[in-house]
Amino acid sequence: MIDRIVIDDLRPRTPSGIFPAKASVGEVVQVSATIFTDGHDRLAAQVKWRGWGAGNGDWLVAPMVDRGNDHWDVSVGFTEIGAYEVVVEAWVDRLETWRHDARLKVAAGQDMETELSEVALLLEDALAGLSGDDRGVDREVVSRALGVLRSSCAERVRLDAALDEDLAAALEGRGPAGEVGGSASMRVWVDRERARFSTWYELFPRSEGGFVGTAERLAGVAAMGFDVVYLPPIHPIGETCRKGRDNTLRAGPGDVGSPWAIGSAMGGHDAIHPDLGTEADFKDLLNEAASLGMEIALDYALQCSPDHPWVTEHPEWFHHRPDGTIKYAENPPKKYQDIYPINFWPAAEEDRRALWDACRSILDHWIGLGVRIFRVDNPHTKPMAFWAWLIPEIQRAYPEVIFLAEAFTRPKVMAKLAEVGFTQSYTYFTWRTAKHELASYVTELASGPTADWLRPNFWPNTPDILADPLRDGSLAAFRLRVLLAATLVPSYGIYSGYELGENQPQSDTNEEYRNSEKYELKRRDWDAADSIAPFIARVNRVRRRHPALQQLRGTMMHHGDNDLVLAYSRFTIDRSDVVLCVVNLDPYGAHHDMITIDLAALGLPEHDAYEAHDEMTGATYVWHGRTNYVRLDPNDQPGHVFHLRVAP
Amino acid sequence: MIDRIVIDDLRPRTPSGIFPAKASVGEVVQVSATIFTDGHDRLAAQVKWRGWGAGNGDWLVAPMVDRGNDHWDVSVGFTEIGAYEVVVEAWVDRLETWRHDARLKVAAGQDMETELSEVALLLEDALAGLSGDDRGVDREVVSRALGVLRSSCAERVRLDAALDEDLAAALEGRGPAGEVGGSASMRVWVDRERARFSTWYELFPRSEGGFVGTAERLAGVAAMGFDVVYLPPIHPIGETCRKGRDNTLRAGPGDVGSPWAIGSAMGGHDAIHPDLGTEADFKDLLNEAASLGMEIALDYALQCSPDHPWVTEHPEWFHHRPDGTIKYAENPPKKYQDIYPINFWPAAEEDRRALWDACRSILDHWIGLGVRIFRVDNPHTKPMAFWAWLIPEIQRAYPEVIFLAEAFTRPKVMAKLAEVGFTQSYTYFTWRTAKHELASYVTELASGPTADWLRPNFWPNTPDILADPLRDGSLAAFRLRVLLAATLVPSYGIYSGYELGENQPQSDTNEEYRNSEKYELKRRDWDAADSIAPFIARVNRVRRRHPALQQLRGTMMHHGDNDLVLAYSRFTIDRSDVVLCVVNLDPYGAHHDMITIDLAALGLPEHDAYEAHDEMTGATYVWHGRTNYVRLDPNDQPGHVFHLRVAP
Repeated sequence: MIDRIVIDDLRPRTPSGIFPAKASVGEVVQVSATIFTDGHDRLAAQVKWRGWGAGNGDWLVAPMVDRGNDHWDVSVGFTEIGAYEVVVEAWVDRLETWRHDARLKVAAGQDMETELSEVALLLEDALAGLSGDDRGVDREVVSRALGVLRSSCAERVRLDAALDEDLAAALEGRGPAGEVGGSASMRVWVDRERARFSTWYELFPRSEGGFVGTAERLAGVAAMGFDVVYLPPIHPIGETCRKGRDNTLRAGPGDVGSPWAIGSAMGGHDAIHPDLGTEADFKDLLNEAASLGMEIALDYALQCSPDHPWVTEHPEWFHHRPDGTIKYAENPPKKYQDIYPINFWPAAEEDRRALWDACRSILDHWIGLGVRIFRVDNPHTKPMAFWAWLIPEIQRAYPEVIFLAEAFTRPKVMAKLAEVGFTQSYTYFTWRTAKHELASYVTELASGPTADWLRPNFWPNTPDILADPLRDGSLAAFRLRVLLAATLVPSYGIYSGYELGENQPQSDTNEEYRNSEKYELKRRDWDAADSIAPFIARVNRVRRRHPALQQLRGTMMHHGDNDLVLAYSRFTIDRSDVVLCVVNLDPYGAHHDMITIDLAALGLPEHDAYEAHDEMTGATYVWHGRTNYVRLDPNDQPGHVFHLRVAP
Repeated sequence: MIDRIVIDDLRPRTPSGIFPAKASVGEVVQVSATIFTDGHDRLAAQVKWRGWGAGNGDWLVAPMVDRGNDHWDVSVGFTEIGAYEVVVEAWVDRLETWRHDARLKVAAGQDMETELSEVALLLEDALAGLSGDDRGVDREVVSRALGVLRSSCAERVRLDAALDEDLAAALEGRGPAGEVGGSASMRVWVDRERARFSTWYELFPRSEGGFVGTAERLAGVAAMGFDVVYLPPIHPIGETCRKGRDNTLRAGPGDVGSPWAIGSAMGGHDAIHPDLGTEADFKDLLNEAASLGMEIALDYALQCSPDHPWVTEHPEWFHHRPDGTIKYAENPPKKYQDIYPINFWPAAEEDRRALWDACRSILDHWIGLGVRIFRVDNPHTKPMAFWAWLIPEIQRAYPEVIFLAEAFTRPKVMAKLAEVGFTQSYTYFTWRTAKHELASYVTELASGPTADWLRPNFWPNTPDILADPLRDGSLAAFRLRVLLAATLVPSYGIYSGYELGENQPQSDTNEEYRNSEKYELKRRDWDAADSIAPFIARVNRVRRRHPALQQLRGTMMHHGDNDLVLAYSRFTIDRSDVVLCVVNLDPYGAHHDMITIDLAALGLPEHDAYEAHDEMTGATYVWHGRTNYVRLDPNDQPGHVFHLRVAP
């Protein structure tokens, strides 16, 4: 029923255990477990890992370390994209048990005759079980130790408590010499680096003059330091019940409609809106992005306008009213006559398969053109079972594909979408503004159980959400929120116009934008004198310089008395890179505070000086001790981003 | 891969999911889960449960309640001892979804024609799918509603937002009308009541003059309110290397030896030490206990003296040294030559099976004589796999058997022993004395995840442990610690002599007793004038009167400023019984404090008066509001045990 050695609490893992935990290339992952057995025997344990399935190469192995209270861990890294099998093995280390006991007995002056006979047997066993170069054990060293033990009794009795140092060294880090007493395995999905560390910029290509104009705009976006450019749906837009400007019920002549009302006589999810350009233009756009070190992300929005080809070709993929007509979307009493939601569970199983395959084909089409990142619209309104099928299905063929879940929904649903496979997730950051909210939310994301499988992507704004303090906000508010998003977690994004401080809400109670770009074209002056693009560029350069800002887990909140000053550090597991951020949460007033950091936890000297180099201003401060003074004026800078280090 | 409706986080459960969670007859158990699906459909969910396996009777069913944030729960009770299958089922409630949407549409004055056609179809479906008396749905009511809907349009259009009230009532609490969209199951082991609520008294029968003398002593133990009398091993004791008084290495003439050095030429684990009496005397003792409403618990200590019959009959069941001799127990540099530990993993699988079966036979033997409770000595030095096999094996045949794990070991090992099957567990209470220690430990036990499977049994002392503040302690200290143990958790126990305030430690650094009863006989004056037996009797009477003190989960710590005053309440889930304990942790000085309780959480009036009736003194106080004054003098009483209630 259970192994001789108990191995529990494997991490990383998902709650169900059915879906893999997540890691990424270049990430240091701590694999840990609870390991124990009965009695006083000394245990040894290791992690071994390899690509999933047979024939995927040799096991890589790392010895685990006992951290006390039966908790064992070791840091490992994964080098390839794809599914990994990770196994924790533990065994009774008979030689180490002998050495430990022998040391105590020799110290107590006890007779060692029996103990020496025992270790001779153990060594003979070990020797017999080892091939010449098995995991670093040196046959010669073992043979020599054995020789000593077989020699005269006089020599042996006073042998040191342990085997000689050579032998101890040779035995270090070897795998199980005898029987493995327990093993437990888990699956880890390893993404490419951009799944972990990415910087997103959303723009409507139609406002830039289609794909050709967008390609021209890319250099400016790249100069700000973004590496993913996400486009809302690029497909033909429905005519029936098309929405007018400002989300009015009827479009006027010339109104362009919402890109999310997908499908017209000109095609559906695999077609390009003719106003944007041709497939060739789209490919040129992908190439231009690639040449700038960026990628284009598309929107995967599974819904149809009444004019979508599926409506006539596959009425069985939609919901029907008793009179046989297709149901439009509703959230009673609201009606969305321009959108037909898809019925993911048609009555006939063959219809369900055909529909799900058609949904998959959309992705195949765009992947075939070179797209590798998809932002998924409202995934929580589609079945969890659909995503649990679709994402592994796609990633089996194209493991480099990234899915960002736009699940602004209930916490447990958001977490489950990430568990079943979404690479990244929009979060509640958009509405988290107070110090205690930000501190507890980021601590939960970086240090809670979801860190094993949910990767947050922080958005200060989206085309749907002009959140506080951006509503009617100053440019200082825009600097503040982008600095938080960019330094609290490794992935974040903004919707274009942010750098210009676009701050007009639809109304006092509606958090959408006035004259929303969702329903009309926008012309913007990217070269406006007060654009905060240079500020954003600086923030993104700091992100690229610091590995600490490129991973989720090494995050710690720090104490300060001022409720409008948030202090946190980000650091790599080995503390080779430590960044301390101190942010003034008030865009309208200067604030100061005494910030106390845990020097030992950050690998900094407790009694000597260390440097705090502000990456945003270039200023360097010499600090002593754990508590230091900071003052921030929002007209000057929203926050410090200190690189903490011992002076070279 | 996953269901249409997601059902996660089932509780109660064990971490592995392999072993059942625990409940008991008469206990109210909250079954909960995270339940959600995509989209806006309204869900319904139920728990159904029945004895494990086929033919174990009909399912019992209870509808679950949505508590918000996708958390659903319902309280259920189990009536029979044994293994249960518990299933959570959820489905889209199409009628409720219709009713919810229709209400909003009517309120908005929308045309209802289509909606009425829809509900007519739904009702026809429901009618077709129902047998006459299926789960309380009244065919007639459904038919009548359908009749209304089929009648003239004029009548229908202004129909109230919902179906009529009769129909709503008839549909309440029905099971799934259509397809179950998700289901998840777990196993729960249901013990008898004493597994949850028990009061233990440990005594050495040899000190009482064997079984006959012990039987005479039982009336006194029963008068104190105990219901389990636990006897250390009653088997023949080894002669070889027998320990002398005070744990000296060699026994003097007449020294009786430790009962845990089991086995001699007179027999092993299934034999009775001839000095204690005959098997008939033992049966008389069981009968006398039963007549007093008590049970005898035996010690299950799987180790052998060198004289145990197994040593010669089955040398393969022990560890061997290179010279072929059997290894005695060691914890280097300590040696225990009077004990041979068992090797639970002999090299040959048939030897292992024979050994494990022999261990099981010991239990069968004593169960055959009528014993149903075993206190298990040092279970953490035996394989977890052994217990995971043995306990279900025994309980399949004798589901009323209770196992108490004496696992004073590391936290994760203690929790795992409980997970694999132990009914109750000794805990760290013995060494928890400070307010913050007690508060956090009890909160963890009563409200943490282990509450699903680990039942604490609090022991202020054992024959091995004379803990602070009992060492050289006053009788006030003894009253204090037993009051805590008896009111913090539903099961506790003391080792005899406690009521007499036996307080002499072996030494300043050794927490054993001086002149330990483990190695010699004790004669005590049970009628001593300063015995605290009457105090203990009163405490135990209060425990029997209050269901709140008989269950683990309803426990809440309360705030007070004095670090030497601990305040906590215990309550039934429905708050029909609420007990507030306020204990002075200092046995040497009087203390007072202002105690603040959460009235709403305890079901007490926030603006009216309520009574605090001290069950220990009979005094009744009338309290108003959440903060009240208490003062406790240890020479008077160690604590209040208030029954809180609205004045009748």
